[in-house]
Amino acid sequence: MPDPLRIAVLGVGMMGRFHAETLSSRVHGARVSVIYDFDHERAAEVAAEVGARVEADPFAAINADDVDAVLIASPGSVHEEQVLACLDRGIPVLCEKPLTTGIRTARAVVETEAKLGKKIVQLGFMRRFDPEYVAAKQLIDSGAIGRPLLLHCVHRNKNNGDHFNSEMMIRDSVVHEVDVARFLLGEEIRAVQVHRPAATAAAPAGVSDPMIVIFETEAGRLVTVEIFVRTGIGYEVRTEVVGENGSTVFGLDHHGITRTAGPGGAIWSGLIPEGFIERFADAYTIELQRWVDAARTGGISPDGADAWDGYAAVAVCEAGVEAIRTGDRVEVDLGSRPVPVDRPTE
Amino acid sequence: MPDPLRIAVLGVGMMGRFHAETLSSRVHGARVSVIYDFDHERAAEVAAEVGARVEADPFAAINADDVDAVLIASPGSVHEEQVLACLDRGIPVLCEKPLTTGIRTARAVVETEAKLGKKIVQLGFMRRFDPEYVAAKQLIDSGAIGRPLLLHCVHRNKNNGDHFNSEMMIRDSVVHEVDVARFLLGEEIRAVQVHRPAATAAAPAGVSDPMIVIFETEAGRLVTVEIFVRTGIGYEVRTEVVGENGSTVFGLDHHGITRTAGPGGAIWSGLIPEGFIERFADAYTIELQRWVDAARTGGISPDGADAWDGYAAVAVCEAGVEAIRTGDRVEVDLGSRPVPVDRPTE
Amino acid sequence: MPDPLRIAVLGVGMMGRFHAETLSSRVHGARVSVIYDFDHERAAEVAAEVGARVEADPFAAINADDVDAVLIASPGSVHEEQVLACLDRGIPVLCEKPLTTGIRTARAVVETEAKLGKKIVQLGFMRRFDPEYVAAKQLIDSGAIGRPLLLHCVHRNKNNGDHFNSEMMIRDSVVHEVDVARFLLGEEIRAVQVHRPAATAAAPAGVSDPMIVIFETEAGRLVTVEIFVRTGIGYEVRTEVVGENGSTVFGLDHHGITRTAGPGGAIWSGLIPEGFIERFADAYTIELQRWVDAARTGGISPDGADAWDGYAAVAVCEAGVEAIRTGDRVEVDLGSRPVPVDRPTE
Amino acid sequence: MPDPLRIAVLGVGMMGRFHAETLSSRVHGARVSVIYDFDHERAAEVAAEVGARVEADPFAAINADDVDAVLIASPGSVHEEQVLACLDRGIPVLCEKPLTTGIRTARAVVETEAKLGKKIVQLGFMRRFDPEYVAAKQLIDSGAIGRPLLLHCVHRNKNNGDHFNSEMMIRDSVVHEVDVARFLLGEEIRAVQVHRPAATAAAPAGVSDPMIVIFETEAGRLVTVEIFVRTGIGYEVRTEVVGENGSTVFGLDHHGITRTAGPGGAIWSGLIPEGFIERFADAYTIELQRWVDAARTGGISPDGADAWDGYAAVAVCEAGVEAIRTGDRVEVDLGSRPVPVDRPTE
Repeated sequence: MPDPLRIAVLGVGMMGRFHAETLSSRVHGARVSVIYDFDHERAAEVAAEVGARVEADPFAAINADDVDAVLIASPGSVHEEQVLACLDRGIPVLCEKPLTTGIRTARAVVETEAKLGKKIVQLGFMRRFDPEYVAAKQLIDSGAIGRPLLLHCVHRNKNNGDHFNSEMMIRDSVVHEVDVARFLLGEEIRAVQVHRPAATAAAPAGVSDPMIVIFETEAGRLVTVEIFVRTGIGYEVRTEVVGENGSTVFGLDHHGITRTAGPGGAIWSGLIPEGFIERFADAYTIELQRWVDAARTGGISPDGADAWDGYAAVAVCEAGVEAIRTGDRVEVDLGSRPVPVDRPTE
Repeated sequence: MPDPLRIAVLGVGMMGRFHAETLSSRVHGARVSVIYDFDHERAAEVAAEVGARVEADPFAAINADDVDAVLIASPGSVHEEQVLACLDRGIPVLCEKPLTTGIRTARAVVETEAKLGKKIVQLGFMRRFDPEYVAAKQLIDSGAIGRPLLLHCVHRNKNNGDHFNSEMMIRDSVVHEVDVARFLLGEEIRAVQVHRPAATAAAPAGVSDPMIVIFETEAGRLVTVEIFVRTGIGYEVRTEVVGENGSTVFGLDHHGITRTAGPGGAIWSGLIPEGFIERFADAYTIELQRWVDAARTGGISPDGADAWDGYAAVAVCEAGVEAIRTGDRVEVDLGSRPVPVDRPTE
Repeated sequence: MPDPLRIAVLGVGMMGRFHAETLSSRVHGARVSVIYDFDHERAAEVAAEVGARVEADPFAAINADDVDAVLIASPGSVHEEQVLACLDRGIPVLCEKPLTTGIRTARAVVETEAKLGKKIVQLGFMRRFDPEYVAAKQLIDSGAIGRPLLLHCVHRNKNNGDHFNSEMMIRDSVVHEVDVARFLLGEEIRAVQVHRPAATAAAPAGVSDPMIVIFETEAGRLVTVEIFVRTGIGYEVRTEVVGENGSTVFGLDHHGITRTAGPGGAIWSGLIPEGFIERFADAYTIELQRWVDAARTGGISPDGADAWDGYAAVAVCEAGVEAIRTGDRVEVDLGSRPVPVDRPTE
Repeated sequence: MPDPLRIAVLGVGMMGRFHAETLSSRVHGARVSVIYDFDHERAAEVAAEVGARVEADPFAAINADDVDAVLIASPGSVHEEQVLACLDRGIPVLCEKPLTTGIRTARAVVETEAKLGKKIVQLGFMRRFDPEYVAAKQLIDSGAIGRPLLLHCVHRNKNNGDHFNSEMMIRDSVVHEVDVARFLLGEEIRAVQVHRPAATAAAPAGVSDPMIVIFETEAGRLVTVEIFVRTGIGYEVRTEVVGENGSTVFGLDHHGITRTAGPGGAIWSGLIPEGFIERFADAYTIELQRWVDAARTGGISPDGADAWDGYAAVAVCEAGVEAIRTGDRVEVDLGSRPVPVDRPTE
């Protein structure tokens, strides 16, 4: 039995801390050895919890002797340099989205990794590990509903601060549907359009919440996304795939039914999860277990999102932000996919 | 086009009034011509609503020239004499349950009708006309779930007055499951046992609410019935049929889903009907339309419950009441079915 | 009790025949007295069934002494002249959609009726009488989900002939969502855009099936409609209303659950209705009963769609057809609503 | 960070092998160090998979230096001696049901452990770790549905060999409902009755499949259990709790809905899990993680089933087997619960 994978976690805000805890209590073969956070006190607190040591500098953490792999949960603005440092050292990295904050820098990461000749950058699109998405992907691939034609996505959050503007709704929320659409349909998105209805009273001035985002894929399929991040309700993520011979919908959350008397009459009811941690807890654990299993042999999980997926997500979101501004269809141009060194065209 | 069927409605308490209104506003080919009620004022009020005249005596109503058929919604204690009067005159009658209040009298009605040589007595077991029960019956008969082995019934009411004791729970509530079991399984019930758990705090002293009633059929199949008439919630009637090759459950009430924030977190929910009128409104309308269609040619609806069904229900309920007392299995003996005069054995 | 309303049914293709049968067997207070159809043999056949006489000319039928009201189920191209003839005689008319086949003619009908000073033209938008739509409208109006912001509609048919092109998908199918959106949101549609994905292999060349249609209302709310008329599955009509404080979805069809073994593993399942008759049978009966009740006193059902609703539907569909061509947002201009003569502004 | 817990797995048939794999690939802080199985070849095969060594004798395995805790998945007949050996050495043990194969021996285990003064025996009732059961328990304890009055359990298996007789249906299948009832209601079962309907054609001669089992608790609450182990469908475990102020049902399996055309018409459908591994995979992982976490400090998981729970299950099943024979109500007498040495009454 090999020793546990020693992992440096960079950034221990809510997500990083949750990942560090998962790695150190629910994932086999992993050990959090090093914690870095801009806020050193927070780093120390989490390090104590998970039995790790603290590093005061992220690059020292990446290059430390007791680090075999890196999990990046720091702010998006520093992802580029941290991922590049991991590539430089050649150790596996699991990077929360976004890969980087711009198309050119994201493409540069893709190209740098291609020169390595092997994939070591994985993106934290956890829905690819959610049992419902996996089952939907298998159903599509089985041919049971025929060729997919349409995807309808609903993505709703209970609430968000006033800083969470229309652009962030694309970059931080719809980005998941970008990856889901590419994952389920197996092709690239070539254009984006955004429809902006009258906003909810809960939205700050100037923020278009909700919005309807339409993706158009290379094969001409359409994806509709309702993004609504201040519903006041809970976390709702539902996806319907409409194929030539059938359709499938998941994310319904009907795990149990309770019947009670209510003020307006008797109801049957079930709970809606509060947030994404509740909804995707299993997906996160599976994602981390699969990544650890792969990273122990120096690679990334074959069913995870890779650097190209991260780059494509950045590019589509960029177009989405532009589409908010214009109201028109905005095209996405990814360019050709770099060929990894020493390996023939995939 | 024949003239509308002229109907006398006997008893216009809640059910009778509802029937009179249905006949005079939602059923084709029917007209309520005469109203009788022990409470003459109430009779006059309903008569005015539906454009009928009042009769002060039920037998005068049954024998009136402007009456082609009779709907009996009077108290059970007078059903026997009113049904016999209809048989005497030979006109179709739709009688709310019970057929009569005793096994011997119920059997006497069956035998009197048999001498007529044609069926003119229909029992008001409306579930036989409910689209969900009809679909379940068709599913069973199609063989899709194989031979039925078990039936699980849930019958819950929001509340009932303190007079509604354990015996009435059998005679007035479980009587519907008696008919449902006979209808869906197509055979007689040969024994009944009643289990009495600790009662709800809402039950008056000495009343066993809820109870678990077990029917055993001639072929040895089992029917479990949860009867609970003071849930404080709403009207819940669910039935599951378990067959050798599959099962089916209906009465789930999931017509729509609403998602809202609640005090204990966000919920998805749907409404539970308040009472049997809400749940079975369609069944009542269909029952009356089918009965009117049949009565216009002097008979009863072939898909309705007949006098024998009414008699069997009385006999099983009688055994059920005895089973409450003893806690043991109580057998039901229906005797042989009378052969209608002038007609070969059915 | 007044005599039954004597109704002329014009056009007895599938819909007209279904209506004639409903009126003569499931609706109280109605009688089909006259049948007209371009195909005289078909007219005779239906007339025999429902006990009516045949008229060889639609205008003779409209003006016949034994006709109190008219139901128009003839081809859309003759609706204008038939509705105008009813207006001319001043008798109530229930007209299947479309009101007429052009904006100007539809507006002319509205204006002609306005001069009468009372509403006698009702449109056959039956969903307004469907219990689920009525419940959704009540839920919205109760404020339980707050101000509606978005409507998501799915409208799928099992199949359609090759003649059923993209334009007909708007005029014959999406027209129902036009009325539903106006009914549920209580305001006019001011613009339409159509997105056309790659078509299903089942679609004839040049037909965009499915399509995503986006309505924008006067208040800036958005309605998304998936119209897909060759799914090969069944009839699926689902609607989700997303409000500021909650959401509701209906049309889920989960009336019962059957569990069986299947070739690919065990499944729980339920039936999807084959077509709109199965799905909306109750709505049609309620629509006709409500219309008959109203027509007996010379008017239309207050909860039905009126001539203005018919005109608005024509105008929005016209814009929808233009939107298919351009791919862009097309505005709808209804003009001001005519004020009925002798009545103050509504 | 402490070293991983070194675990001996005794018995690597289907369950033991699954547990060994879970411990060595999905549970943090655990390592399978020793494998024992009666079939030495099978032991060697699993040991190679999980990186453990083989022991040829179970007691040598229990007492080995590289063993900190023991998981027993061997046949029930040897549980007694293996659990006692663990108690003798004083190391934590997770024992699959049954605790032992007789009431007296089970009680002896309870008493032996009581003398130790601390709990080190945990029973493998995994449903206590299933998120749905945990949520139901929390719901009950929250008071949201009031005091529970009834529990309805459905327990169905796709198929079982002919050796699986009525007695085994109680001991191996209903035993889970025994524990669920005690877990959810928090009290002991005082009597059992078994109703035996006509059997499915798939049952071997003399085997009563399905059966209806009724438990009566100390407080007079009733539990109905449908046990049906040859449905030909899949694995269905559903539980409904009926309280004084509401009810809750779970185990519905509605994770996603697929709509397709079928031979008998279009259906919406979802998958039923094939067996208990699919249904309770998460519960097993959570159970093992929780046990490992507790065993690392020498104890058992506080939310797991303890030796007394194992003893009570044996006693109730014994009564259940007797109840099959008599058809009557059979009482259960557990005696008083032993007080652990050195600790005051719990």
